[in-house]
Parts: sequence; C-alpha cells; structure tokens
Amino acid sequence: MKSYDVIVIGGGPAGIITAMTSKTYYPDKSVLLIRREKNVLVPCGIPYTMSTITIEKNYIPDAGLSGKSIDILVTEVMSIDSNAKKISVKDEEIKYDRLVFATGSRPLEPSWLKGKEKKNVFYIEKSEDYLNAMKSEITGKKKIVIIGAGFIGVEVADELNKEKHSVTLIEKLPHVLALAIDHDFSCNLDEKLKSRGINLMLGESVKEIAGGDKVKSVILESGKSIDADIVIIAVGYSPNTALAKSSGVLVGVKGAIWVDEYMRTSVKDIFAVGDCSEKKSFITRKLSNIMLASTATSEARIAGANLFKLQVLRTFTGTIGIFSTRVGESALGSAGLTESQAVEENFDVISGTFETKDRHPGTLPDSSTIKVKLIASRLSGIIIGGQVSGGESAGEMINIIGLMIQKKVSVHELMIMQIGTHPLLTAAPTVYPLVKAAEQIISKL
Amino acid sequence: MKSYDVIVIGGGPAGIITAMTSKTYYPDKSVLLIRREKNVLVPCGIPYTMSTITIEKNYIPDAGLSGKSIDILVTEVMSIDSNAKKISVKDEEIKYDRLVFATGSRPLEPSWLKGKEKKNVFYIEKSEDYLNAMKSEITGKKKIVIIGAGFIGVEVADELNKEKHSVTLIEKLPHVLALAIDHDFSCNLDEKLKSRGINLMLGESVKEIAGGDKVKSVILESGKSIDADIVIIAVGYSPNTALAKSSGVLVGVKGAIWVDEYMRTSVKDIFAVGDCSEKKSFITRKLSNIMLASTATSEARIAGANLFKLQVLRTFTGTIGIFSTRVGESALGSAGLTESQAVEENFDVISGTFETKDRHPGTLPDSSTIKVKLIASRLSGIIIGGQVSGGESAGEMINIIGLMIQKKVSVHELMIMQIGTHPLLTAAPTVYPLVKAAEQIISKL
Repeated sequence: MKSYDVIVIGGGPAGIITAMTSKTYYPDKSVLLIRREKNVLVPCGIPYTMSTITIEKNYIPDAGLSGKSIDILVTEVMSIDSNAKKISVKDEEIKYDRLVFATGSRPLEPSWLKGKEKKNVFYIEKSEDYLNAMKSEITGKKKIVIIGAGFIGVEVADELNKEKHSVTLIEKLPHVLALAIDHDFSCNLDEKLKSRGINLMLGESVKEIAGGDKVKSVILESGKSIDADIVIIAVGYSPNTALAKSSGVLVGVKGAIWVDEYMRTSVKDIFAVGDCSEKKSFITRKLSNIMLASTATSEARIAGANLFKLQVLRTFTGTIGIFSTRVGESALGSAGLTESQAVEENFDVISGTFETKDRHPGTLPDSSTIKVKLIASRLSGIIIGGQVSGGESAGEMINIIGLMIQKKVSVHELMIMQIGTHPLLTAAPTVYPLVKAAEQIISKL
Repeated sequence: MKSYDVIVIGGGPAGIITAMTSKTYYPDKSVLLIRREKNVLVPCGIPYTMSTITIEKNYIPDAGLSGKSIDILVTEVMSIDSNAKKISVKDEEIKYDRLVFATGSRPLEPSWLKGKEKKNVFYIEKSEDYLNAMKSEITGKKKIVIIGAGFIGVEVADELNKEKHSVTLIEKLPHVLALAIDHDFSCNLDEKLKSRGINLMLGESVKEIAGGDKVKSVILESGKSIDADIVIIAVGYSPNTALAKSSGVLVGVKGAIWVDEYMRTSVKDIFAVGDCSEKKSFITRKLSNIMLASTATSEARIAGANLFKLQVLRTFTGTIGIFSTRVGESALGSAGLTESQAVEENFDVISGTFETKDRHPGTLPDSSTIKVKLIASRLSGIIIGGQVSGGESAGEMINIIGLMIQKKVSVHELMIMQIGTHPLLTAAPTVYPLVKAAEQIISKL
C-alpha cells in the first residue's frame, strides 16, 4: 500500500499552501496532494474569465508543487478510515500520517428559490468544465440576470456587461457589497455600476425564476418581472464537508469542520483549512461565514507549520475579513468590521473618513481620488475596521489597514506612524489619508 | 504687540503639519505660521517640475491652514528672544507661548569641490525663484551633468532626460540609491536608467568642476572629463539652524537641533521638527542624517499633540528611513536597514527575496513583476528592513513593511498574516511576496 507522511485533499489555494508550507517546515516528509480537477482555477480570477482572460489563462500552475517534490493525484477520495489512517481513492488505498481537508466550498443553492432547477440557471462553480459549459450557453444570449451583489455578483456582472450582454444585478440589501462596505463607501460603486450600463436593482428580493423548461424571467417580491435568457445565482458559498463528515470529524453549527486554533479537527492527526473549516471573527469572536483566500492561506500556513509539532506563535486568532475588488479603474477594499456591523454588534465606535488624491501634487497625471474610512473603539482608540476606495494602490492600502487590525494599532499610534510617500505613487505626507482618518477620529474623542 | 499661542517658523510639510495638528488637539489656541516663501513647493515634487509638471502646479495649497484658522505671515524671522518669548520679524515683534522651528534644510555644498562657484552650477533648492532661474538657464542647453545618484539625483536625471537633454549622472558608490537599496535590488535600476538614455557613471568621484566663468566640464578622479553646459550638485541636504542657534537652543553633533522624544529643544517652550531637528535611527539607535517627509510629518504630529501638555504614547522612537521612488513604470521602495547596512552595523541577519507578478493570474493585462526583500534578525525573526520593486502598488507595499518594522513584526507573525488579494490589484494569495519572503527567511533559520 502506498504511504505518505502528509496527504492533502483539495487542490485550491488552501490545499496548495498547506502542502508547500509543510515542505518548508518539514522538508523530509513526503507529501501528496489529491484533487478532483485536472486544472485548478485561481478562484478569485473566475469572474474575470467571463471577459478579461480565457479560462485556460486562469490556471494555478503546478510548478510550485512540483518544485517542492509534492506529488499530485487527480482523483476522487471515496472514503477515509481515520483509525487505520488510510484513505480510499478509485482503485487503491493510501496510508497517511497526517491528513488535511482542504475541500473548499461550493455555491450556495437557495432552497427557498422556486424555479432554480430550470435550464440556463447557473452558479459560479470553481470547475473548468462547468464554467466552459456555462460560457458556451451564455454566448449569443442577450439578457442575463444575476442574483446577489456581493463580490462575485458584482464582478461577474461587470465582466458580462463588457461582453455586451444586457445585465441586471439584483440585490436585496440597499447597496452592492453591503456586508463588506459601509453605505458612504458603496454608494459611489452603485452609481459606477449603473453608469457602466448595468441595470442595478437594489432592495429587491427574488420570489421566483419563471419559465418552462428554460428560464424566461425573474419575478421579484415587489411584483416586478425581469426578462432573462440566463440567470446566475451568486448568493454565497457553503463548505464542502461530506467527505469530512464520513471520516468522523466534528462539524460545527455553521456547517463547517470544527478546528482548534492550530487547525486540528476533532480527530487525531486530521487537520482542516480554508473554506471547509470553521471560522471565527477576529473582532466579534463569533463564528463567521466569511470565505476568503486571505483567511484560507493564513490557515494553510498555520496547518503546514503545525502538522508534526506545534510551533510557537502559531495560533489562528480569527478572520479579519479582508477583501478588495476593482470595477473599471476604481478599486475598493475592506478589512475588519464595517461601521454598521460594529454598531449592530454594540461596539462603541467612532469613525473617521478622509479623501484626497493618490498623487502629490494632485495635479500630476494619472491621479485618482483616494478615500479612507477607519472605525475605532471609542475608549481604546484601537482600529477594528477600515475601508479604502481609490485607484490601483487601494489594493495594498487595505493590507496596511489589515495589518493594523491584526496588530491592534490604535489611532494614536497610527497618527505618528512613518509613512513613505512619493509624488508619483502616493498621497502627500501632509494629507496621507490613513493618518488623516485617524486624526478625524482623535478630534472626535 | 501681536501675540500668538503658537508660532511655527517654516512653511514646508513639517511646519504645516505641526500647525494643523496643534489645532486638532488644541482647537482654541491661536496659531501663526511664518514662512519666507510666497508659495511653498511640494518638496518631493520638485524633481518632477523639470518635465512632468510646471512649478506652479507643485504648490502646497494653503487651504489646509486657512481651513483651520491658522494665520500665515510671509516674512523673514530676524531674531528670537526666548526669555521674553518673542520673535522679531521685519517691522514688528510678535509674542509666542510655544515656538516651533520647522526651518528645514538646504542643499549641501561640498566644501572639497573645486569650481563649484562657477556659473551654471546649481543645486536642487526648495525655492520657486531659484528653480525658475535654474530652469530658464537649462532651457536650450544640451549637456547636463548631475553629481550624486541618491533619490534627488536619479529623479532629476530622469526628468531632464525626458526633456531631451544629454544627461550624465555621476555616483561615487557602485550603484544608484546605494544607501537606500541593496545591490540585488538597485542593479535593475542602474540598467533601466541606462536604457532610458542616461549616461550613468558609477564608482566615479568628482575632482573638479572646470571652465572659466562658466562651467565647461566635470573632471573625475579617474582622469575622465565630461563636457558640461550645466552641473547640478545633488549630494544631500544640511539642516537650517542659523536662526535656532541664535535663539540659544542646543545643536547636536550632526549639526541639527537637539530634541527630546517629544520634539522639545533644550530651551523651554521651543520645539523643533523636520529636517532641522536631530534624528536617531529606529534600529541602530545612532544619530542619522536621513531627511524625509515621512519622518518630518511624524515628528510634526508628535510636536503638535504635545505643545501644551505631554500626551500618552507620543514618543518618537527614531526614523525608520522609509522611501519610495519611480522611474518610468518601475517603482522602488525601501524601509529600515538595507542588508549591507545591517551587516556593516554587525546585526546578525537573514534575508529573503521573492519575485512574482502583481496580478493573478500573471496572464492578466497590466501585470508587472514585483520583488520583495526582507531583512530579519536571525535570533528573533524581527523584521528590520525591507525593499520592494515593482509596479505602482510598490508605493503602498513599502508602507506595509514600514508598519511591520515599527510594530516589530517577526517573520513568524508575517507568515500567517491575513493579506487581502485581488486578481486585478495584487499578487496571488499563494505567492504574496511579503509572505513568501518571510517564508524564505524561515526556511533558512
């Protein structure tokens, strides 16, 4: 019987990073990564395969794995025997010393939605074959209705709009990305999506997908009806845990695999990382549904380091929920709690917002407006959330905020941080927006 | 006699920020800012007034000051009576309760350099009139020789090269930006400057500026001679302390105004901030000559908060030396110690370097190569320096490294940081270069 020191099940970022990190900390251990897909897609690149790039260009290369002598097996795992420490795949059994679930997530199918079984109703699956079939079905169709204006819905809508489809985006909340971005930040994006030609319907709930065999229209609770040749449902993802359940590991109340802070499941020598594993919020300390590559790769690195011995400082202190996205030339990022989430959770917070140009002087060519919002605890001044909108640099600015949240930086510390600035790269040192947003908060304390 | 609660002398970023911050913390205090210049230039924008923008477009607007009811007086301060707590300007005396020196720096004139008094020898002065005169002298001239390839020299060379001058850049060290960037990072920049048409002469010392009344050539220690219509000397800046000295404040061994950690000088109720005040390195704890807007504005915010009472956590712990620059589409940043400085200072360090694409997949349009180098203490893993080269986002990535240095983040912590990533904005989460550089270091520990 074949045998590996480490078997990772799942070929997405969480699986890849666990396998590679285990080789960094334990170079002598043999590692096998098992996945179902011949080619693995960059998950957050999938929306962009609708227009910007081909699906083939969105593969995660295997070079990182093969470069570290990690074996890859493309197959389905049928069952796991955690007592005998072996797994069964088609035609063979393989022994493991440590097993890692990195089985990911799949699109949430809303049980309450009538008509979702009709032809031409799609999800954003992380599967090349599915996406190819979906894309060929979409080709030539005019009217596309997308249900759900989270990151995936917004990005797919914008991409399909570029391909000259007539795109309607329906969201039950009053704004797009409402769970990630406060109203004062997202309202620009609402307008931007409209100005790009997307028919945005906010505050509308879907009642039914109507038609015969194929979808014909989407009927809203408000009574409105929208003609549709294609419907894409983008209302979230749920953890893939069927295999894990069959192995006997505990699954938590949110439907994800229970893990301790070292990413260990309830069964000895079995770990779980990424979308399939349970998450806790860094700030609220509650269980969280957030599924993000940022969290998944962090967990994977913790698991990879701790597979054979627990090493210092390797605890996972919860997900901060750090995102970014881009529509046209506008980038948008969020980390930690939004102000409305903070208020809802009864945090006593103060927020500060500052807007300026991301070049200095602002007269320089290619300058964009950059806006930063910070949310801090009133008593301690510790930053618990932040949002950035602006040009390209917003994608890394949200990582500065993310680091501040993780290091529990207060607005008082931020106020005197040394920030590198350059005319052609950043805002001016006098009005650097992170510092000015902190100053806004201090002036209200 | 007129009287103000706060008088700030100097109109650059340090002065502006001190004045504005004092109004944030003490809104009822009256504040006067005195400066010599009618219009204040964005200091780091000055190189870009050679081609990219006009000098008029490089003004720092007064709106920030007037918006906070800060009075502005354009005049020269003649003397200071720190016992009577008053200053003399042309025609009048003004009383102060707190006085702040933000008198900045001026170009270093190399005393050893023969011929530097000739016509058409210039410095990069922070003065509109001087720069206008220099620009009109340069117009129509062919051969420009720039002495010193620090940030100012490199940026001015690149700008004048855009204007079709024949530009020679002379540097005595073996690489450009050698004090800010390690060799493995700067060598690309050397090549890039050459490929843009700049005649780069590295490892060459200037012996003499030759000619009659006007400069004719620059003669090197190696015996080479370079024809020159214009010479620009860019070998650093020295603090402006003449006025401060006359007021009785202590000036340190490096020629800058001595300050405590709250930016107080040796004379009661007089503060000093920015280029004119003494700096200490965050890491080596030695005195430092570094003059940067990032340091100056941090000091200014500390002084502004502490003018009337010392408030908690307002200590200035030393300059980390955080820079960025851009040549064409290539951006470059540095923070903390370079590896060669660290070795020279006898720090036991390990470095890690990682290069990838700043989009994911890398097949996306507009992707640039991004390279990160981190330098960490071998024993503690604490990051004491880092460098970034890449596209536009490098300007904010260096601020992530800067924050890590200031918060004493170790490579072990960085390894599991949650980093936001997006296909169109950043590198992939699997190969995010900051984390991968940390992993490189860990694998060597």
